[in-house]
Amino acid sequence: MKARVDIITLRVEDLEAATAYYTHGLGWKPVLAVPGEVTFIQMGHGQVLALFVASGFDADVGPEVQAQCNLAHNVSSEAEVRLVVASMVEAGATVIKEPQRAVWGGFSGIVLDVAGCCWEIAHNSGWSVAEDGTVTIGPV
Amino acid sequence: MKARVDIITLRVEDLEAATAYYTHGLGWKPVLAVPGEVTFIQMGHGQVLALFVASGFDADVGPEVQAQCNLAHNVSSEAEVRLVVASMVEAGATVIKEPQRAVWGGFSGIVLDVAGCCWEIAHNSGWSVAEDGTVTIGPV
Repeated sequence: MKARVDIITLRVEDLEAATAYYTHGLGWKPVLAVPGEVTFIQMGHGQVLALFVASGFDADVGPEVQAQCNLAHNVSSEAEVRLVVASMVEAGATVIKEPQRAVWGGFSGIVLDVAGCCWEIAHNSGWSVAEDGTVTIGPV
Repeated sequence: MKARVDIITLRVEDLEAATAYYTHGLGWKPVLAVPGEVTFIQMGHGQVLALFVASGFDADVGPEVQAQCNLAHNVSSEAEVRLVVASMVEAGATVIKEPQRAVWGGFSGIVLDVAGCCWEIAHNSGWSVAEDGTVTIGPV
């Protein structure tokens, strides 16, 4: 597993206020926004900050974990999702959601690591990073 | 404030186990480790994952916030720490720790943003990033 975070996801109570803070307040650039659900904001090179409404975040992670944030790691195929999840488990992590078709159309699994952090390992065919680091999230 | 995270800090109960997971388990490279306190691990280009023992994490953030992770943003001077913290407050965030000399020798402030996420804005003269993205953390 490469040492790389593609998405830092924050569980937010008030998505509209949180989105306004980062975009209007700090002037950061939204990549994609689904009102009432999630806002993705460009950060650094190829990295995105996701503001995920609490209800959606909780439904995604499931009831076993009380998390405030997740880290996501994108890979290039469904097979690689399975391989990375297996390597994390081999290293001592626990599977929270077995690799499966995701509600957003891609394929992902969720793992709780030994540090207590949730990682989503995902294949998203609609995710692309330009040479300058700009992320585009298109249809899956 | 630039849209960039330099350190993702996880609050960990068992630092030794968490460090072993990331370094021996996943094979990620430690940048600096202070046994019993904190481990910094290289991620991506210029970014570091910090595993911070829970007691130290809690002492750092203070009792007002129940956080599981923090994001840190490094800037190039103490004056810039003050400017960035002021810009976050202007955008609606709340100061948790006023910019001040930090226990690790640098200068930093901690802010709770509108999304509920803690950010540490820091000036660390011992922090450097090589052209290839490798982070070095030296004496401050």
